[in-house]
Amino acid sequence: MNELPDAWRPPARLLLGPGPSAIDPRVLAASSHALLGHLDPAFLAIMDDVAGMLRSLFRTTNPLTLAVPGTGTSGMEAAIMNLVEPEDRVVVGVAGYFGGRMAEMVRRAGGTPLVVEAPWGTAVPAEAIEAALRGAPGPVKAVALVHAETSTGMLQPLEEIVRLARDHGALSIVDAVTSLGGLPVEVDAWGIDVCYSGTQKCIGSPPGFAPITVSPRGVAAIEARRTPPVTFYMDLQLLRGYWRDHTYHHTAPIQGMYALREALRLLLEEGLPARWDRHRRVHEQLRRGVEGLGLQFLVEEMRRLPVLNALRVPDGVDDRAVRQRLLQEHGIEIGGGLGPLAARVWRVGLMGYSAREENVARLLTALRIILGAPRMSKPPRRG
Amino acid sequence: MNELPDAWRPPARLLLGPGPSAIDPRVLAASSHALLGHLDPAFLAIMDDVAGMLRSLFRTTNPLTLAVPGTGTSGMEAAIMNLVEPEDRVVVGVAGYFGGRMAEMVRRAGGTPLVVEAPWGTAVPAEAIEAALRGAPGPVKAVALVHAETSTGMLQPLEEIVRLARDHGALSIVDAVTSLGGLPVEVDAWGIDVCYSGTQKCIGSPPGFAPITVSPRGVAAIEARRTPPVTFYMDLQLLRGYWRDHTYHHTAPIQGMYALREALRLLLEEGLPARWDRHRRVHEQLRRGVEGLGLQFLVEEMRRLPVLNALRVPDGVDDRAVRQRLLQEHGIEIGGGLGPLAARVWRVGLMGYSAREENVARLLTALRIILGAPRMSKPPRRG
Repeated sequence: MNELPDAWRPPARLLLGPGPSAIDPRVLAASSHALLGHLDPAFLAIMDDVAGMLRSLFRTTNPLTLAVPGTGTSGMEAAIMNLVEPEDRVVVGVAGYFGGRMAEMVRRAGGTPLVVEAPWGTAVPAEAIEAALRGAPGPVKAVALVHAETSTGMLQPLEEIVRLARDHGALSIVDAVTSLGGLPVEVDAWGIDVCYSGTQKCIGSPPGFAPITVSPRGVAAIEARRTPPVTFYMDLQLLRGYWRDHTYHHTAPIQGMYALREALRLLLEEGLPARWDRHRRVHEQLRRGVEGLGLQFLVEEMRRLPVLNALRVPDGVDDRAVRQRLLQEHGIEIGGGLGPLAARVWRVGLMGYSAREENVARLLTALRIILGAPRMSKPPRRG
Repeated sequence: MNELPDAWRPPARLLLGPGPSAIDPRVLAASSHALLGHLDPAFLAIMDDVAGMLRSLFRTTNPLTLAVPGTGTSGMEAAIMNLVEPEDRVVVGVAGYFGGRMAEMVRRAGGTPLVVEAPWGTAVPAEAIEAALRGAPGPVKAVALVHAETSTGMLQPLEEIVRLARDHGALSIVDAVTSLGGLPVEVDAWGIDVCYSGTQKCIGSPPGFAPITVSPRGVAAIEARRTPPVTFYMDLQLLRGYWRDHTYHHTAPIQGMYALREALRLLLEEGLPARWDRHRRVHEQLRRGVEGLGLQFLVEEMRRLPVLNALRVPDGVDDRAVRQRLLQEHGIEIGGGLGPLAARVWRVGLMGYSAREENVARLLTALRIILGAPRMSKPPRRG
């Protein structure tokens, strides 16, 4: 490279895609403080605050609750690589891209995924999970499920499946990347053994950390492993050593931790029920607006995620052209479809600081212009 | 948690430990811009800039050059988990904590580490590596070495060992976490196959990314694997898919990428030779100062890392008490020893934006006060 790239600032964007979502100015300000060392007592105190607030958010008392130093996918990998040993059977519900990713990770960890498929956009039925548990040729180590399938906008009912897993002596692993902080995730009340998330969706912090919590049963399973997990970086016993005992393991992303602390403070100041209500309210606003534009949801109403809305691209409309115009003419990002839904859905995220009424109004106005939908008071045309 | 933690700002600290080091205000400002989506064309252009500048920094033309979304340790894990397959033999030079960590990762990846040990604080002799290559009971997949051993302050000569590896048909894996950006690392000229680093040391960006580069030979070895690597998160072929082809794999830490871009711009504006000189110059300043205080280096002069200085704790001096006073009374962080060097050395990092003369002067003044060394003009005592 002979010439250096220029100084730069990002264009202004309203982030209404599948994440990252926008962050509150307070979070941005917190992340802009000068660095501390990762073993500085002042920084370790910040980590204690984060762990405590994560427990409140996960609704758990699990001592092993921390943030993995990576994106949401690192939370999935930490969960699976720590729980799954070679030869372990894991029942995996797959009704979208991220369920499929879980199955792939189980395979890479040397386990055998017993995949329970459901059509993309639907939930995995509890009966199908039960059948897989009963039909397995031997003990099942865990049942893995995506709570909020980001690729389809589907909300997976969990309570019954988590109970079924326990009844069959299996652990439960729940992906709450897109749900935590935007809708109820009740780790202790539902009896989830391992639950992980990402910071950049409903939590409202920049991407870079994956909050995770592990039940005492889950910890016992990890401690009883025959061999250490292949991963050193995401070894939960080593991560616990840093968070709990302050033993060096990695150099924590300092600014991300500042940001996460402030995002969690904001979240708990608002209060979980009020926050869930807000996400529900802006979803209803979006629903009314897009229905007025003649758009349809991929997922039936009962199973819809309020925070991630998959809308069918109308016949004859060019998915990519619409998203490009939204971005370039209106400064609004929404997501396209993944895998078999590519070019077939738009994904509208209303998460964290992005989940505000003025944002929905702005998106609806832009969509109305781009899709050329009839205006409220269309003047009569004269020949 | 019943009460929320208070609003907070970090205490002022001069970071002279083993990292993170301080960051230039320009880097902090860059990291404070509003978020973009991880697939926004404007963000993908930023990633292209980063990849190009990383090639300049690594002194390579390797197409596969990118930043793993994790700390320096994630770079080590990405290198080893992508290169090492079960049953592979890897000669690992161990003369400190991080060499030992490499051997541990080889073991976890299912490989067999052939450990070549040298006393902590010394370099691993090329002859010992050659003997291990000759004495191996079969083909050796790779030779893994730490260029700058952060636990001891030792600079490992590389050229001959990298050549030996190649002569024996083995790849070379080099840990340049503490050297890249502070002293010469010549990936192409020396023929290194895989080299990784961390952003928070001599590069002068916050922790959270691990730059990595892989030679065409290394890429061929990865592409020829019999099975995919256990890690999905750090799978270099998937990471390349995101960096090169813009296929979704993870949600990049957006702010960290902004920061890394600006840190690399600063670094290349200064110019690598000037930057290496600066690190050498402040090291000499520190050397003169601490020798004046009667302190001794752990490592012999020829093998000393300019950027990470391990100083022996004098007999009868309480390691921890000195570091606490430095932190609390003077706002200066230095590091303690790891493993067998705990309480036996102090580690003074002079890296990136921390490597400035006024910082060395401030540390020397504080050490002089705390260690009670004679002042330059001590007034005569009168009975």
